[in-house]
Amino acid sequence: MTHADRLSEAVAAEGLDQLIVGDLVNPGDSSREAGADAFWLTGFTGTSAVCVFGPDERLFLTDFRYTERAAREVDPSFERELLQGRMMADLAKRLRGRVGYDEARTSVASLRKLSEAVGEDVELVAAEGLLERLRRRKDAAEVERIAAAAALADEVYEWICERGLAGRSEREVQVAAEQRMREIGAPGPAFPTIVAAGENAALPHHDASAREIGAGELVIVDMGAILDGYCSDCTRTFATGEPGDDAREVYELVRSTQATALEAVRAGVSGRDADGASREPIAAAGHGEHYGHGLGHGVGIEVHEAPRLSQRSDDELAAGDVVTVEPGVYLPGRFGVRIEDLVVLGEDGPRNLSSVGKDLRIVA
Amino acid sequence: MTHADRLSEAVAAEGLDQLIVGDLVNPGDSSREAGADAFWLTGFTGTSAVCVFGPDERLFLTDFRYTERAAREVDPSFERELLQGRMMADLAKRLRGRVGYDEARTSVASLRKLSEAVGEDVELVAAEGLLERLRRRKDAAEVERIAAAAALADEVYEWICERGLAGRSEREVQVAAEQRMREIGAPGPAFPTIVAAGENAALPHHDASAREIGAGELVIVDMGAILDGYCSDCTRTFATGEPGDDAREVYELVRSTQATALEAVRAGVSGRDADGASREPIAAAGHGEHYGHGLGHGVGIEVHEAPRLSQRSDDELAAGDVVTVEPGVYLPGRFGVRIEDLVVLGEDGPRNLSSVGKDLRIVA
Repeated sequence: MTHADRLSEAVAAEGLDQLIVGDLVNPGDSSREAGADAFWLTGFTGTSAVCVFGPDERLFLTDFRYTERAAREVDPSFERELLQGRMMADLAKRLRGRVGYDEARTSVASLRKLSEAVGEDVELVAAEGLLERLRRRKDAAEVERIAAAAALADEVYEWICERGLAGRSEREVQVAAEQRMREIGAPGPAFPTIVAAGENAALPHHDASAREIGAGELVIVDMGAILDGYCSDCTRTFATGEPGDDAREVYELVRSTQATALEAVRAGVSGRDADGASREPIAAAGHGEHYGHGLGHGVGIEVHEAPRLSQRSDDELAAGDVVTVEPGVYLPGRFGVRIEDLVVLGEDGPRNLSSVGKDLRIVA
Repeated sequence: MTHADRLSEAVAAEGLDQLIVGDLVNPGDSSREAGADAFWLTGFTGTSAVCVFGPDERLFLTDFRYTERAAREVDPSFERELLQGRMMADLAKRLRGRVGYDEARTSVASLRKLSEAVGEDVELVAAEGLLERLRRRKDAAEVERIAAAAALADEVYEWICERGLAGRSEREVQVAAEQRMREIGAPGPAFPTIVAAGENAALPHHDASAREIGAGELVIVDMGAILDGYCSDCTRTFATGEPGDDAREVYELVRSTQATALEAVRAGVSGRDADGASREPIAAAGHGEHYGHGLGHGVGIEVHEAPRLSQRSDDELAAGDVVTVEPGVYLPGRFGVRIEDLVVLGEDGPRNLSSVGKDLRIVA
């Protein structure tokens, strides 16, 4: 069943005549993330596209710049039409009946313009999360793309380790890693690669700086590749020489917590409970306040998508979810440890897509 | 006057008690573009931040992941507080009186959540485009950052030409150019570099493919760098050997049209008239239908920002605007030409930030 066929069923089940699919936040100039729904539905890799989707209607709209790309890429079951003028006015002409839009992907300004432009027979209905729910359940082809992106990033991890860390700047390692990704076939990283050494590793979202990586330090490398439109995400913490007892102890705590969490992350478990399973051992070791982020998040076309694994999550994990499992402990001004795998949840248990070793590796 | 001081004046002039600044579309996981307003206002380079801004109030809110980065980067005139839970609920607690939000940067879902969470004394007021208008008027420090990003990209143009184009794939040239950008100091490109040869150059937003660049072809290279948080944008069309009379003729048409347009782009002129000045000579040469995009757009923290230069624009150009001037002609299945400079508009005329030559350059 194609993605479009799955969406047809969902749209019918919601009692909608049409669903608008695409980015209605900043139409005409959107990021890769903003194009994610349209890519999932049609295969189109450009931005500035919107679909009108109904039980008997598959319409793909883009502007002049993308007509040839659309002809090559878009699922041929879609009719293609050219946007002539302002997107909301053009879109409004194609709408009829009960029309769903995604509250989370529509700006207040776009909804206002659309409401002003539609005919009296159109009822605009908030349908938040319909695509999000479908996109969570990855099919076999999507899992293989994510696995391939993960395998590519794993190769780069090995390359980084062989090349060495100490004496290089965080930034040099970041640039080299992303360059290597491109050399071996990725269009680019899924997000800016994090390389954080020593006290910088205590900043969970430190990027990479001019700071030179010293000897005997912990270094967090958080990295993912994009391949065929799908992302990977993996984190390892390396040591540039024996890091000392405290660092080793925290490393082993995170290591064993991550193993515990991998056992807890299953279809049928809530995102909150999965997160809780990782929070307990860290709190028991007295580091509860040093673990300030959630256990993980979904990964697919976007590097952060549904579901969430955290104490604030209302999601229940399900087969087809691809999620990260990434506990961490961060001691301000000293060091930090995070270990992250990417797993796909199946009916009969998870499959780990990350293959880089997790024993503390000393990298000169 | 700092950016925050300029915003204070604007907020007072709008009769607002507070203005919300930040991305309320996808809070907690945002792109560089989504963080642009907060970066402009405070200097913060992370995502997942929101400011509450009033005549006597400068509050910067971010979550656990970014506290140390915020301490380093954020304008010290701001108080910093930690977001504890869900962003809309946390934000709502800080609001009082007449509170402006940006319709274009707030999703329908976020506005709904915010409306549900605020007290009865709060009136949420659409204030679209307030930041956008201020961000248009670049100050001297911003112009110098953009000029430096443009100069860096110009160096890469020269490097590409010396290295040669024919016999390489579009994709290889793209990857090498972006790598070169990084080597000479840019964190990365402002957008995916376009390298489009032969008939691919007839696709205005062709990215870069495995297609090998042949001899005697036109090759469009559209490229910009990011430096210190600001973007550049420039396009040149090269020939890999004598391209033939038709291609030369179209090149010279675009070349002279671009010179005409550079004269027309001045403070006080409308975006529509500036665009019109470039449309006339192309239409007169019988290529009106082959010029399907606008003349240009603003560039700054984002590579596409206000104002717009097109037939659909309602903007009037003003001193402090930094805009592209980029007419093009695209003959489907055959070839395309686009020439783009980046200019800053001053009271006493424009300054061109792009220095790469515009005579047709034959690059082997």
